[in-house]
Amino acid sequence: MTRRDDDPGADRLDAALSVDVDRLRTDIEQTAAFGAVETDEPETYGRTNRTGSRANRQARDYLVDRLDEAGLSVTVDPVGNIAGTWVPDDADSGAAPIASGSHLDSVPEGGIFDGPLGVYAALEAVRTLEGADLSLERPVTVVCFTEEEGATFGDGLLGSSVATGATSVETAHALTDETGRSLGDALSEIGYHGEGTIDPSTWEGFLELHVEQDTVLEETGADVGVVSTITGITHCAVTVLGEADHAGATAMNDRTDALAAAAELIQAVETAATDAADELESAAVGTVGSLSVSPNATNVIPGRVEAGLDIRDVTTEGIERIVSAARSSLARLERDRGVETGFDRQLDVAPTPMSDRLREAAHAAAIDCGVDAIDLPSGAAHDTMRIADATEAALLFAPSRGGYSHSRKEWTDWTACARATEVLTGAIARAATDDPS
Amino acid sequence: MTRRDDDPGADRLDAALSVDVDRLRTDIEQTAAFGAVETDEPETYGRTNRTGSRANRQARDYLVDRLDEAGLSVTVDPVGNIAGTWVPDDADSGAAPIASGSHLDSVPEGGIFDGPLGVYAALEAVRTLEGADLSLERPVTVVCFTEEEGATFGDGLLGSSVATGATSVETAHALTDETGRSLGDALSEIGYHGEGTIDPSTWEGFLELHVEQDTVLEETGADVGVVSTITGITHCAVTVLGEADHAGATAMNDRTDALAAAAELIQAVETAATDAADELESAAVGTVGSLSVSPNATNVIPGRVEAGLDIRDVTTEGIERIVSAARSSLARLERDRGVETGFDRQLDVAPTPMSDRLREAAHAAAIDCGVDAIDLPSGAAHDTMRIADATEAALLFAPSRGGYSHSRKEWTDWTACARATEVLTGAIARAATDDPS
Repeated sequence: MTRRDDDPGADRLDAALSVDVDRLRTDIEQTAAFGAVETDEPETYGRTNRTGSRANRQARDYLVDRLDEAGLSVTVDPVGNIAGTWVPDDADSGAAPIASGSHLDSVPEGGIFDGPLGVYAALEAVRTLEGADLSLERPVTVVCFTEEEGATFGDGLLGSSVATGATSVETAHALTDETGRSLGDALSEIGYHGEGTIDPSTWEGFLELHVEQDTVLEETGADVGVVSTITGITHCAVTVLGEADHAGATAMNDRTDALAAAAELIQAVETAATDAADELESAAVGTVGSLSVSPNATNVIPGRVEAGLDIRDVTTEGIERIVSAARSSLARLERDRGVETGFDRQLDVAPTPMSDRLREAAHAAAIDCGVDAIDLPSGAAHDTMRIADATEAALLFAPSRGGYSHSRKEWTDWTACARATEVLTGAIARAATDDPS
Repeated sequence: MTRRDDDPGADRLDAALSVDVDRLRTDIEQTAAFGAVETDEPETYGRTNRTGSRANRQARDYLVDRLDEAGLSVTVDPVGNIAGTWVPDDADSGAAPIASGSHLDSVPEGGIFDGPLGVYAALEAVRTLEGADLSLERPVTVVCFTEEEGATFGDGLLGSSVATGATSVETAHALTDETGRSLGDALSEIGYHGEGTIDPSTWEGFLELHVEQDTVLEETGADVGVVSTITGITHCAVTVLGEADHAGATAMNDRTDALAAAAELIQAVETAATDAADELESAAVGTVGSLSVSPNATNVIPGRVEAGLDIRDVTTEGIERIVSAARSSLARLERDRGVETGFDRQLDVAPTPMSDRLREAAHAAAIDCGVDAIDLPSGAAHDTMRIADATEAALLFAPSRGGYSHSRKEWTDWTACARATEVLTGAIARAATDDPS
């Protein structure tokens, strides 16, 4: 980026990009007030902000007011994605912008940082850059995506999926919440059924700041995480069919116990994931998160088990190794225990590597700010995963105290929020020039 | 037993004790008609006969009519147990009777033999002995116990528990069904809140014929099973507490997965039961029949598992070995995986050996009838288990086709019912003399 020649602070970039922590905190706390959940723990509070709710309209209205206030031109698209664009004085208004943002919706009784930090860090970056007297060549767009959590209309990453064309507007509008209200109707009711276009393929790049939701940063003492790859995800629905029988009257060698069989599968998945993570030095994880037993009575041998498997890695090989181990385990159980098994690979998302150029910009910005940044994978999905299909994309993490997320226990200290926002600001500034070196 | 000297058929005991298979079948089919469940399968039909229901009153009324018809004097006690006593011509009316019977209630959509076979086989034995011209020294009492299944008022073996004093009348009366109606009120409404006394400790002995509910007889081709011991039962409620966490963002070596831990417990119970059955040559079984996982979402590491263990054996050592293996497994899981565990031994019933004298009488009767009888344990509980606390008791099994029970698939061929009833009849006749040799 080019520092204006008449800037007396040109040699102190970090000072020039100091964000206003109080302004950032006010925005996040105001957003948290819409749908606030009471809690007794000091400095810890949660929020329920479901897409289409009153709280959701309030949070959106508050954002649009802040975008207006900062002089950004606001666009709302048909699924309620919101974008505010700032064209710096020296920039070509027709140049492809650098975009940054996240989401405002939450899971029920979720945390206050998951989403809003990324939206308001992006806005705070613009406000900081507006006052920083730098010469930027590209517009900067602040974005808020609809229904990232999928907690209300069922499909996560919804707004970013529609923006990138992975999901049609019609499909999204037809989704219904638990009361049967469609997303299309919900957006009309809260005034966010827009007519504008928000198209990530027209962006030069996209950066999202999010809370880590894990403890890698906390454990390493780093201030910021620069995501290398968002892990791929496979979900498999497994069925194990044995024979329900009297637990007292059926001898051990006469039974076909679906749960005893499923216990072997659970261990096979755990072992395969641990081995894959070790051998590939990757973030491989394998979890049997859900299990239902039928008839589920203490005195009846289980006749049927249904299990939900979650398998993730930054490498396709890691995912396939774990899937293959699960399939082998089921084949062995059919042979050795006489159960019947079913295996349905319901969801399959490939690992998404992040943009090298934007990651370098983030690391350079961290050095400018004197902030300790490390590379790490993301085990969770984020809107960035979808945007990476349309343009260069990067994901930054701020530390999560204790790794808690989707919970009122979620917390990131305000100074940590500010530090990560400064890195985001610097990275946006670098990306908004054609020569980001 | 003493054959009358003037009996021309004294040398053909089996012919003299031939039961009337049509009369037995009519009684069981009439009982099945009360609360009959429709089914398409030929020769297979189920029934729902819940204690206190209209069907239950009808089945009881039908029994009392049959007892009257056969000349038995009927007693109903305060929990609705029914007894009908026949005093043979040569018997001392004050002598301790030989009792035999079972129950008329069923589980919802249960089979037609589970209970009624034992009640009507006892009555058929009396009717056969009434016509057999034998000299018996003791009265014979036909018994029907209330709420054996525990399907309606929650406590199984209820009538036999009250009769033997293990449960008080007051406690039993206060039990409620799912509508909140008390057993006391239910019995009054159907006219079976009696005032008589039925006290098994005044009986010389008790024999129950029941369907096997397993396939040992079917597999060995035997006609009748003579139970050696009713297995002891231990029920344990196990809790495994780990930490619920994001399935994607939590590395394999950072997680405390309650379900992966529980999988080890399930296998430890299965292995210990198999080993105990082998090494002790006993009927040891161990089952994790119920399991609930929390939060039970595919993408969340399980934080809590609750499991229900059913452990049984004819030997106390077998039960204790399996319990001890489960406890050791939990201790190992606490040490190796950092979970917290809870172990609550909620139910503990010791193995109940059957009366040697009555078992010998049954075997001798089987030989008289030319019927193939084998010894075997009972893995299921029956009223006989309670009665054995008060007097000598024995349990006979008739074959169950395919081992099905508590199901409309339950079936025992009528000729098999008749054959087992003849063995019961012979055993009662032998027991009803002071010299049963």
